Amino acid sequence: MPVFPKSMHKIAMLGGGSWATALTKIVSENGSHVGWWLRSKDDVQHLLRTRHNPRYLSSVAFDLARVQPATDLADVVAEADWLVLAVPAAFVQPVLDKLDRDALKNKRIISAIKGMIPEKNVLVTDYVAQRFRLAPEQLGVVAGPCHAEEVALEKQSYLTIGSPDVELAETFCQLLRNRYVKAHPSADLDGIEYCAVMKNIIALTCGIAHGLGYGDNFQAVLVSNAVQEIRRFLHALSPLPRDLSASAYLGDLLVTAYSQFSRNRTFGNMVGRGYSVKSAQMEMNMVAEGYYAVKSIHDLNKKLKEFMPITDAAYRVLYEKVAPAVEIELLKEKFR
Amino acid sequence: MPVFPKSMHKIAMLGGGSWATALTKIVSENGSHVGWWLRSKDDVQHLLRTRHNPRYLSSVAFDLARVQPATDLADVVAEADWLVLAVPAAFVQPVLDKLDRDALKNKRIISAIKGMIPEKNVLVTDYVAQRFRLAPEQLGVVAGPCHAEEVALEKQSYLTIGSPDVELAETFCQLLRNRYVKAHPSADLDGIEYCAVMKNIIALTCGIAHGLGYGDNFQAVLVSNAVQEIRRFLHALSPLPRDLSASAYLGDLLVTAYSQFSRNRTFGNMVGRGYSVKSAQMEMNMVAEGYYAVKSIHDLNKKLKEFMPITDAAYRVLYEKVAPAVEIELLKEKFR
Repeated sequence: MPVFPKSMHKIAMLGGGSWATALTKIVSENGSHVGWWLRSKDDVQHLLRTRHNPRYLSSVAFDLARVQPATDLADVVAEADWLVLAVPAAFVQPVLDKLDRDALKNKRIISAIKGMIPEKNVLVTDYVAQRFRLAPEQLGVVAGPCHAEEVALEKQSYLTIGSPDVELAETFCQLLRNRYVKAHPSADLDGIEYCAVMKNIIALTCGIAHGLGYGDNFQAVLVSNAVQEIRRFLHALSPLPRDLSASAYLGDLLVTAYSQFSRNRTFGNMVGRGYSVKSAQMEMNMVAEGYYAVKSIHDLNKKLKEFMPITDAAYRVLYEKVAPAVEIELLKEKFR
Repeated sequence: MPVFPKSMHKIAMLGGGSWATALTKIVSENGSHVGWWLRSKDDVQHLLRTRHNPRYLSSVAFDLARVQPATDLADVVAEADWLVLAVPAAFVQPVLDKLDRDALKNKRIISAIKGMIPEKNVLVTDYVAQRFRLAPEQLGVVAGPCHAEEVALEKQSYLTIGSPDVELAETFCQLLRNRYVKAHPSADLDGIEYCAVMKNIIALTCGIAHGLGYGDNFQAVLVSNAVQEIRRFLHALSPLPRDLSASAYLGDLLVTAYSQFSRNRTFGNMVGRGYSVKSAQMEMNMVAEGYYAVKSIHDLNKKLKEFMPITDAAYRVLYEKVAPAVEIELLKEKFR
């Protein structure tokens, strides 16, 4: 595929959440054309009428000459040379299964999703590659320590694009780079994607500990041990040399684990304070991505058999109804 | 030296600040006898009268059968088999220089200080070893992610004792371990001590960035890059194999960099908001340890010549009056 000038790139953005909204802002302001698929007709109408997403980052005004909100998925995808996936992991399958199996032929796919396909325990990029018979070189992930809310405020942020195709990664970086976004390519697609999934488990567990009354000292130890747990898991899956203190790994973990706004942390916090999993989910009116991530990573580790005390503890709390206080008490003994 | 039963250890605690107060609580409640040297006669009188330190962690009541506050340094030291240093780094020299050169013969010294001897650019343990002609095996450091305030609240905390003498490290661990403190030995005295110094530079720089309006995304990138900067520096100084994601390194960095209460972060924040270094120090009525640490580490690196963009930026802001906005702008380009 030739490298178009930035302004000629056509991107299909899938998803109406805060991260999709932030990415649409970045790439469209940078000159790319964006076909923005949202599920809700009302939201599309609101965007077309007011230039603002009514639900997320609603201060951001979009230039409708470059951003075309729409509800017809096949149309949006057909027009684009890039597909950016930014729907919740749980909706990847139902959304993409509406597309023909050759709908993504010759397209480049970037996943911005921090979760795995539920039940299947596969990465989003692996699912997409398999379902649409894509070469690994067509795929990438975007990750990094990046609250969408800070993108809306144009605060300095860093993103990493992971892809086995360095040229794809660098090209997408060019579509992102601006006054307040730095972007760097990386070859470690799997590592970055798994780390983005696992950080939600850690944020959730930080929330559980906080809900039980543990303080900052313990959280710092939990996050330190989490880096070691993530390192063991990634090494077992794909023993590339990687520096986990790079911002795509550690930075992403920190911004989530230390965020007061993380939905995973909030969910864990409610569980730690004594809510049942069900009632915490009902109270939040949503299921935090980390809830599924715990099961996927735990199940994957049945084969790998790595020492993963944080994931195991979260699994037993969320899926086996063990009291949070008991699990954190056991975890304490395993940390150093 | 034989290993006494816990209750027979005699510890000279030097310092009246929050960390000295927290350590006195831990070791005395665990059975050790503590001769507690404080500079202020009033504070000693207050402690003897009320069992509380009037200035720090004033909710903690001490058992005066085991804790003897006093102002006579030579007496306190002479009675003890352990010396714990918990005065500000800037006072180590004036305080210890009052002691005879053989006053520490046959004693074991633990430094709880997170700073270097100003002007001399040497670690506290190195200074003590040299001045009192001690063997390396007599020395250790205590570090870890540990807000003293959370110790007062008996929140779960983790400490690491670094010493070339594993038996010394393990013995002091035993004096610390209790219901809410886990302690682990390590052989990496220098690495742990330097990391404790450098984390204050990072917290200070996080404060500068925050004062300038940078957000959580940038802080996560700054801390990630800081781990890499610390790793390069430690490796150049002493290329031991060490896992910087252990809680003695990364955890200690996190608890400081993400603390709203860190004096280094507060100081940096004022500088970032436009206070001059002098006026920030006057406003705070103290000099943050990180201020000296920046100069020491920067000077040490003149020989090592490692890539240390964060330390360099902080140095130019604090010692060469370069505008904080300019330095953080330059730093942005160096991060990934």
